Amino acid sequence: MRIPTGVTFEDGKLYYVDQTKLPGTFEKKECTTLEEAEEAIRQLRVRGAPAIATFASFAAALEMDRKRHLAHPQWKVEAEQVIDRLLATRPTAVNLSHAMKRLRERLAAGDRSLLSEAAAIQEEDKQLCDALGKSGSTLIPAGARVITHCNTGALATAGIGTAIGSFYTAAAEGKDITVYACETRPLLQGARLTSWELDRAGIRTILITDSMAAFIMKTEKIDLVMVGADRIAHNGDTANKIGTLGLAVLAQHFGIPFYVVAPSTSVDPNLASGDLIHIEERSAAEVRTIAGISTSPEHIAVRNPAFDVTPAELIRAIVTEKQIHFPPYSF
Amino acid sequence: MRIPTGVTFEDGKLYYVDQTKLPGTFEKKECTTLEEAEEAIRQLRVRGAPAIATFASFAAALEMDRKRHLAHPQWKVEAEQVIDRLLATRPTAVNLSHAMKRLRERLAAGDRSLLSEAAAIQEEDKQLCDALGKSGSTLIPAGARVITHCNTGALATAGIGTAIGSFYTAAAEGKDITVYACETRPLLQGARLTSWELDRAGIRTILITDSMAAFIMKTEKIDLVMVGADRIAHNGDTANKIGTLGLAVLAQHFGIPFYVVAPSTSVDPNLASGDLIHIEERSAAEVRTIAGISTSPEHIAVRNPAFDVTPAELIRAIVTEKQIHFPPYSF
Repeated sequence: MRIPTGVTFEDGKLYYVDQTKLPGTFEKKECTTLEEAEEAIRQLRVRGAPAIATFASFAAALEMDRKRHLAHPQWKVEAEQVIDRLLATRPTAVNLSHAMKRLRERLAAGDRSLLSEAAAIQEEDKQLCDALGKSGSTLIPAGARVITHCNTGALATAGIGTAIGSFYTAAAEGKDITVYACETRPLLQGARLTSWELDRAGIRTILITDSMAAFIMKTEKIDLVMVGADRIAHNGDTANKIGTLGLAVLAQHFGIPFYVVAPSTSVDPNLASGDLIHIEERSAAEVRTIAGISTSPEHIAVRNPAFDVTPAELIRAIVTEKQIHFPPYSF
Repeated sequence: MRIPTGVTFEDGKLYYVDQTKLPGTFEKKECTTLEEAEEAIRQLRVRGAPAIATFASFAAALEMDRKRHLAHPQWKVEAEQVIDRLLATRPTAVNLSHAMKRLRERLAAGDRSLLSEAAAIQEEDKQLCDALGKSGSTLIPAGARVITHCNTGALATAGIGTAIGSFYTAAAEGKDITVYACETRPLLQGARLTSWELDRAGIRTILITDSMAAFIMKTEKIDLVMVGADRIAHNGDTANKIGTLGLAVLAQHFGIPFYVVAPSTSVDPNLASGDLIHIEERSAAEVRTIAGISTSPEHIAVRNPAFDVTPAELIRAIVTEKQIHFPPYSF
C-alpha cells in the first residue's frame, strides 16, 4: 500500500505534504526554515493534531540545530522563543502543546538533543496509530462496507491514522473493504483528503455528499460507521467534526454499529459529559463559499459549528490504543 | 413581501429569472424565441416542475402566436412540432408533460387559443400554491423555527411555492418565523435559491450545510421540518431531493414533526409504496466538483442519487391543496 504520510523526517530533512493543494497536486516539500513551518501550520498546509505536533517538534529541533554554534545560555533563550512561536501557530491544539512541553523539559534538563525528542514524538505517534489500527480492524469484518467522515488518516498523523488507520490495517490483513467517504462540508476533508489517500492506497473508495449517508445506509448493506474523535468525555460523549452526530443517529436508526477510534490522549476523564464541551463557531465564509466560490447571498446569516457532540448511547464502542471500550463508558 | 416568482407573463411578454445566475445576479429576462425557451429549460435556467410547465406553455403559445398568419392545417402541424420540442427538453418532467397534453387537447379541438390555456395553467398553479401555503401555514406556530431542504419556492413554481409557500403565508399572517435552509449538496439549491429568495422576502433565514442539521436540532429549539415532494406513493412514502430521508430520521430522533407539502398531482395512488420508485443516478461530476471547481480526485468513484425515499412512518402529515393527511396514509 502507498500510504501518503503527511509529515516525514528523512536523512536529517523535514518534509511535508501541502494539504491545501490536494487532491490536485501531491508534493512532498522540504521545510527549511522556521518561518516556513509557522506558515505551513497557520495556512493548514499541515493539518491534523498529531501531524502538527510531530512537524512542529522537528521544525523547532532543526531550527536550533542550525543555531548549534551559539553558547548554551543564548541557545536556550532562543530555543524557548522558537517553541513559543510554534505554539502560537495553533494555540488550541492539545497535541502541539504537549509536544512543545516535552521539548521544554529537555531544555530545563540542560539537554540540547531536541532532534531525538522530536523523533521520539514521531515514533510514539506511529506506534500509537499502529496499535489503534490493529484494534480498530478487529471490528471490521472481511468484505465490510464502511462509512467514514472527515479525515483521520496518514495525512493527519505521523503514522497511518486513527479511524482510517483501521481501514489500512484491515486492508493489509487481506480484508476486501469498501469505504464510503462523506465529503465533509464545509471544509471538504472527506472529498479532498480521505478519498484521495484511500484511493491512492488502493482501497475501494466511494465519495458521497454528507446528505447521501441516509440513502446509502438504507439501500446498501453497510456494516459499520467508523470515525475519529477530537475529545471524549468521562461518560463517552464524543466531540468530532460537524456531521458526526447526524451519522450516529442515522446508524442507530438503520441498526448499523457506530465506532469511534481515537488515542487515549483524546479522552478527558475530568470532563463529566459532552454537554460541557465548548463548540467553536468558525467563519461564515466557510459556509457561504466553496473553494473560494460564492454559493449563497453575500450577507446571508449562517451557522458554522466546527464540531458536534455524539452522545455515548449512540456509540457501540470506543477504540483506543489500550483497549476497546464498550458501554457503559467510564474513562 | 417581495416574492421573486421564477416565471411571469406580463403585457403579452414572457419573463424568467435565470436561476443559474443566482444568487450573484437577479435578472428578469424576456424570452423571445422558442430556441431560448428550450435552452433555458435544458440549462436549468428555469427549474422547478411547475415553473417549467408554465414557462413551456407560454413559450409554445407565443411561438404559435408569432405564426398566426399560417393557414390552420400548417399552423396545427407546426404547433405539434413546437410542443414536441418543448417536451423533449425535460422528458421525465410530469408537470411539463401534463401541460403539453393540455395544449394538444386545444389543438385537437381545432382551438388556436393556446395563450389562454397557458394563462389557465399558470393561474391554476398560483391558486394551488396559495391553497398549499394556507394549509401548510396552519402547521407553523408563531415564532416557529423551521428547517427546510432544497428549493420549493416561488422560483420553482408559477406562484409562491409549496413548502416555502407555507413560510411566505405564515410570515404574511404575522408569524415571526426563522428558517434554517440546508444548502442541499450536490446542486446547492438551498444555498443558491432558498436562502436567496427567503432573505429577499424579508424572512429571517440561516444557511447551514446539510451536515449541521443534527447539531441544530439538538442545540436549537426547532419546531418542525417542512419539505416538498417529487412523488408520493399510495401509502405515503415520499420521494424528494437527496438528503430528505436523513432529515426525517433526525427529526424523529429529536422528536420534531416532519411535514411534506406538495400538490395532489404529486401523489401517485397507483404506486403501492416508495420501494417501487426508481431513483435517478446523476452525473459524477456534480459530486466531484462544486460550481465547476474540482474538490476531489479526478477519477474517484462516487454515488449521486438525485432523490431518496422517506418512509411514511417518519412523516407526521402530508399537506396537499385539498386537505392535510395524517397517518395511516391511503391516497
